[in-house]
Amino acid sequence: MDPILSISRRTRRTPWTRRNAEHGVKAYTVYNRMLLPTVFESVEADYHHLKKHVQVWDVAVERQVEVKGPDAAKLVQMLTPRNLSKMKDDQCYYIPVVDENGGMLNDPVAVKHNNDRWWISIADSDLLYWVKGLANGRSLNADIFEPDVSPLAIQGPQSDELMARVFGDSIRNLKFFRHMKINFNGKPFTVARSGYSVQGGFEIYVDGTENGEPIWDALFEAGKDLNVRAGCPNLIERIEGGLLSYGNDMTIKNTPYEAGLGKFCKGPAATSCIGGDVLRKEQENGPKQQIRGLTISGIAVSPCRNPWPVMAKGAQVGEVTSAAWSPDLNTNVSIGMIAKDHWDIGTKLTIQTPDGNRDAEIKKMPFI
Amino acid sequence: MDPILSISRRTRRTPWTRRNAEHGVKAYTVYNRMLLPTVFESVEADYHHLKKHVQVWDVAVERQVEVKGPDAAKLVQMLTPRNLSKMKDDQCYYIPVVDENGGMLNDPVAVKHNNDRWWISIADSDLLYWVKGLANGRSLNADIFEPDVSPLAIQGPQSDELMARVFGDSIRNLKFFRHMKINFNGKPFTVARSGYSVQGGFEIYVDGTENGEPIWDALFEAGKDLNVRAGCPNLIERIEGGLLSYGNDMTIKNTPYEAGLGKFCKGPAATSCIGGDVLRKEQENGPKQQIRGLTISGIAVSPCRNPWPVMAKGAQVGEVTSAAWSPDLNTNVSIGMIAKDHWDIGTKLTIQTPDGNRDAEIKKMPFI
Repeated sequence: MDPILSISRRTRRTPWTRRNAEHGVKAYTVYNRMLLPTVFESVEADYHHLKKHVQVWDVAVERQVEVKGPDAAKLVQMLTPRNLSKMKDDQCYYIPVVDENGGMLNDPVAVKHNNDRWWISIADSDLLYWVKGLANGRSLNADIFEPDVSPLAIQGPQSDELMARVFGDSIRNLKFFRHMKINFNGKPFTVARSGYSVQGGFEIYVDGTENGEPIWDALFEAGKDLNVRAGCPNLIERIEGGLLSYGNDMTIKNTPYEAGLGKFCKGPAATSCIGGDVLRKEQENGPKQQIRGLTISGIAVSPCRNPWPVMAKGAQVGEVTSAAWSPDLNTNVSIGMIAKDHWDIGTKLTIQTPDGNRDAEIKKMPFI
Repeated sequence: MDPILSISRRTRRTPWTRRNAEHGVKAYTVYNRMLLPTVFESVEADYHHLKKHVQVWDVAVERQVEVKGPDAAKLVQMLTPRNLSKMKDDQCYYIPVVDENGGMLNDPVAVKHNNDRWWISIADSDLLYWVKGLANGRSLNADIFEPDVSPLAIQGPQSDELMARVFGDSIRNLKFFRHMKINFNGKPFTVARSGYSVQGGFEIYVDGTENGEPIWDALFEAGKDLNVRAGCPNLIERIEGGLLSYGNDMTIKNTPYEAGLGKFCKGPAATSCIGGDVLRKEQENGPKQQIRGLTISGIAVSPCRNPWPVMAKGAQVGEVTSAAWSPDLNTNVSIGMIAKDHWDIGTKLTIQTPDGNRDAEIKKMPFI
């Protein structure tokens, strides 16, 4: 059974913790030492609603690492094998961040304001400490801090309609992973077409906790006839969509190549960034294991709370790290790290789940 | 009401997560992205038992940052204003760790094995990233990683008796914040006289997840007639004892002086460490606010989930960050950050709690 979560100041509230409660949040996780809703009605009901309507998500846990100063661009490029040299001032880039061993420290989205000012919108690890440590160690001229900026995601097929009603029609023209300014109550806010679902949508970077509830309330007021609801990243939908979760599907022990992010490791940055020497070798030799999608036979599996061994002829050849029953695909979908000789699509494997051994098959990911 | 905690691989299990469940854990928090029990019977019942008997605590969340190599001692000294030059190879030191602004990044315990090998036993933040970033930035010769080492605490007045039964009588002679080796099943483990209570006790640094359950089981087998129970850091007892909680009572926005840790900032290290320039100024001028203990009048307060404003004549002069009803003192005890003009013992203040305004008074801390 799921235990109770003890909340203290250390497990930080967000600008919308009160609103989540009013909208009936049933469960939380802790992400970046902050509260992240995981369930409103039920994971399945939330999933069906997300695919059909529009949801507002408190994703304040995507904390920002602001990097500001003359060395900001240089510093951000040191962090990642992804080439940032052609990045425009209104772009967002998904950037693997690696350590000196090529191990992944985070998989954030970099939001470029200009060469001297960036937000790094982080997954679940204190990337702030790595960036500050590097800047201090190399005497770089940049301020690095966590601003009072909290993303609010609007996700689902009716996202454009809802956003246009509140912030005007120009939002409809915003391209994927680009950002622009919107005005609300006379204040400008950065908004990007992005989000942790494949249903389309936006993330508003709400600058200033005091602006959180007014923006939330305006969205709910405008979206009544769109059946807008409070939601959250949905386990089923994100696995179907092949969206990785740092800490679940890859950790500091994995390289970007193992995480299937080799496409973001091209050009000179891929070998000149921190860890570049290690990445060069992996680029040449190829990874020994890599993330794959797998379907799992039988009825709905239990939640995956620690890696499940993946077996072939009695030997372990990998592990499954995320799994859920997909109502739309009528099977269990999962994400795992699989050894090279067993990762081809169509390969049949066995997974040791808490419910016993299950047949599994490597599939193309995203599943949908 | 307390919500449900959703558990995934990202909220890591410990070597004793299964044992905690068998012993009836009722609630968890997430600490260093890992499960930390908070309640077994009830916070009050756990408190009374801890003060009378002996408990075994899964504190695997106190992750170790291992620093190993020729530059290890130099690197650890860079991290903290505390002078480490006289530290022996069997000592543990409580060390504030500060950033370039003098802000606290963590308040870990450094465990020195020798000049070239240290464990930093951390509070709730990814200190690993700061240490790795610094070492990389300054090209220091040290490996920095999280080993598979999980502390298991034995706390309470019967700790010596229980430990002696399992590991031999020599453990009784171990001094406070010193460590030694014990043998279990033919393997050596580091044990220190330390722990996050003021009831006395030990922390065994269990090296190797596979050794976790056997050690736990041996302690419970040997302690039956001592009424040994599974426990966890206890909110009431740690406030009574004046033990601070990083993330609750102080954050990156506070200096060690504000956290009342000025006694650990003496000698040349206090101004030559990272952030030393800022610390020197604070040493000269004194902090503008500092941690204090406060009693709060009336019946038991609700849990403190976000800072409560502390008021004097209608103006805010601080905030309370941890609070609990103390059965033994028959009053609410709390910890807060209080402005200089209002921090003297005996000062009467008003606290805005979720249950309404309450009278409060600055007290000597620890309370007991």
